Amino acid sequence: MAATFAQPHAHGRLFSTSPLPKPTKNLRSPFTVRMSLQETGPSIAVVGVTGAVGQEFLSVLSDRDFPYRSIKMLASKRSAGKQMTFEDRNYTVEELTADSFDGVDIALFSAGGSISKQFGPAAVEKGAIVVDNSSAFRMVDGVPLVIPEVNPQAMRGIKVGMGKGALIANPNCSTIICLMAATPLHQRAKVLRMVVSTYQAASGAGAAAMEELELQTREVFLHLSILIYILCVQYAFNLFSHNAPVLPNGYNEEEMKLVKETRKIWSDLDVKVTATCIRVPVMRAHAESVNLQFEKPLDEDTAREILKNAPGVVVIDDRASNHFPTPLEVSNKDDVAVGRIRQDLSQEGKLDIFVCGDQIRKGAALNAVQIAEMLL
Amino acid sequence: MAATFAQPHAHGRLFSTSPLPKPTKNLRSPFTVRMSLQETGPSIAVVGVTGAVGQEFLSVLSDRDFPYRSIKMLASKRSAGKQMTFEDRNYTVEELTADSFDGVDIALFSAGGSISKQFGPAAVEKGAIVVDNSSAFRMVDGVPLVIPEVNPQAMRGIKVGMGKGALIANPNCSTIICLMAATPLHQRAKVLRMVVSTYQAASGAGAAAMEELELQTREVFLHLSILIYILCVQYAFNLFSHNAPVLPNGYNEEEMKLVKETRKIWSDLDVKVTATCIRVPVMRAHAESVNLQFEKPLDEDTAREILKNAPGVVVIDDRASNHFPTPLEVSNKDDVAVGRIRQDLSQEGKLDIFVCGDQIRKGAALNAVQIAEMLL
Repeated sequence: MAATFAQPHAHGRLFSTSPLPKPTKNLRSPFTVRMSLQETGPSIAVVGVTGAVGQEFLSVLSDRDFPYRSIKMLASKRSAGKQMTFEDRNYTVEELTADSFDGVDIALFSAGGSISKQFGPAAVEKGAIVVDNSSAFRMVDGVPLVIPEVNPQAMRGIKVGMGKGALIANPNCSTIICLMAATPLHQRAKVLRMVVSTYQAASGAGAAAMEELELQTREVFLHLSILIYILCVQYAFNLFSHNAPVLPNGYNEEEMKLVKETRKIWSDLDVKVTATCIRVPVMRAHAESVNLQFEKPLDEDTAREILKNAPGVVVIDDRASNHFPTPLEVSNKDDVAVGRIRQDLSQEGKLDIFVCGDQIRKGAALNAVQIAEMLL
Repeated sequence: MAATFAQPHAHGRLFSTSPLPKPTKNLRSPFTVRMSLQETGPSIAVVGVTGAVGQEFLSVLSDRDFPYRSIKMLASKRSAGKQMTFEDRNYTVEELTADSFDGVDIALFSAGGSISKQFGPAAVEKGAIVVDNSSAFRMVDGVPLVIPEVNPQAMRGIKVGMGKGALIANPNCSTIICLMAATPLHQRAKVLRMVVSTYQAASGAGAAAMEELELQTREVFLHLSILIYILCVQYAFNLFSHNAPVLPNGYNEEEMKLVKETRKIWSDLDVKVTATCIRVPVMRAHAESVNLQFEKPLDEDTAREILKNAPGVVVIDDRASNHFPTPLEVSNKDDVAVGRIRQDLSQEGKLDIFVCGDQIRKGAALNAVQIAEMLL
């Protein structure tokens, strides 16, 4: 039996996030120049435009016909001067400086926490609304931490054209993907406790980690020494506890994001979460096994119906043909897929589910652009 | 930084379990012929000798200097007649028939459940003690289900030379690996509930699945169509819910093995287990994320000390350097590795741990040979 190869990422190298490919437009002809939109709409800046998420920002903006009057491509000094094409216009990547945000309405940041800390407040001061994909401001009081399908109310009152800058934080990828599925169930039956085990893709560690996984796999086949630059152990045909630093309580920072961000997003300081975050040799979509304990009883059929009707969620739960969500099936897709929805045998009123979502897309760029859409 | 390449499997193809490689002996010169041992000891039969576990039976027998007077290499008609060398003697693979067990003392079976059902009782009738790696008899009353470090008492009284055949079942790989770590903690504090998420290797689906993962990965690099023969979805750079059939309760058979076998091995019908079993693109070692709830409080330091002293267990739990168990590190190793030992933040008196073990070795062949050793 031959299967169509669902290639994890279409442009550039095999799984490429190599610098500056032309973002593909899924929905429209690449020759459509959106002149009318480009004369209205906000002025945008993309910070970290050469990275995996930065590139995906552009793809998503294009796919969703996001209106803009101008767009600035910002990156580190190292990338400054590179040429790129976006929606049939040529751009030169500019070096990010404190002056980059003059006249910018919306700045999409994905260049790491230290860049966000350094330049985010400066951008806000200049009147930009910053949607920040780093962890820098997520837990700061007063900074909305937003999944548009989950807690849009957290950013109420923040709009482009009010003449005021603001910071909005994009949650961590594994939090977004988990809560896209858990929230509709939480709204019905109130989640008291979640036990989460993740299966996280290379993309979460950036384009270089994706490349390392690809190169190491080639090295295995060529019987070469395995070169390790980005991650701390061999990644090809292996998996390992998430590379985030481990805290004194034994949890790593990635796991604590799930614990803390869930509380903030749900405005529920009592919800109990434990998580074990593992990186697996998959390119760009995360999976999560989630055990849910509720305050009110919730049976699996009701849960499945709730999830079928949840925005941004697709249910793939075909027991007869053993078809459930996989990372490849959700790669380059907007929706988070949920399956293995079943009554937990070990305790009444609990459920087990299995969730997959594109880490770069809904886990990062799409969520940020959806936030930006709400600013207009 | 260059890392030594810990190749997942040493002989034959890249990750080979291709038919009939000469098993390597890790501990002794390959030129040592154990003539003295070969004149004493039991008469052994290996059923399914051309499979991944069958080959590993031979490796483990050799590595552990298992005494035997003779050894029969048994497989299906298709493989009959193949030549193989083991411990410097030549063997011809024989077709498995009801007459294969004349004079056999110990029969190691790993040829699937239907072969075990067909030939296991016949072997017992001829006076052989069958150590069966399939699921055929695991849950049958009166058939001991044994992990030697966990419940050796279950096979009390069964010995070679008593003139009586018997059936002993080897637990499923994911059960063995989980319980190697959970049992020492259970013995101290009594486990009430376990939430398990697995990261299972190709080897659990047999040598052909390992080959499929390797070939599909090559196909990805060569931009070829991905051929799917053994498993139901693309495996290269992907993961998927375990391929075992899904039961009406929504659990698949692999998950129910963890639930039911744990109860039988611990002789504890009350222990609550839920499991989500996922196959990941790793060759031959399983990983499991396990959340444990106890009757008595158990702190993480005590748990770590207990595990450090547990037979067949090694603790890899270095938070400072983010070094925890990985499948590659335990591949071709006997011990099950445990790490990420920490107090569960979400509920008092619970622990989270992360376990890795070689699926073919402790998860199958080693455990069976350890059982056979207890028969002598």
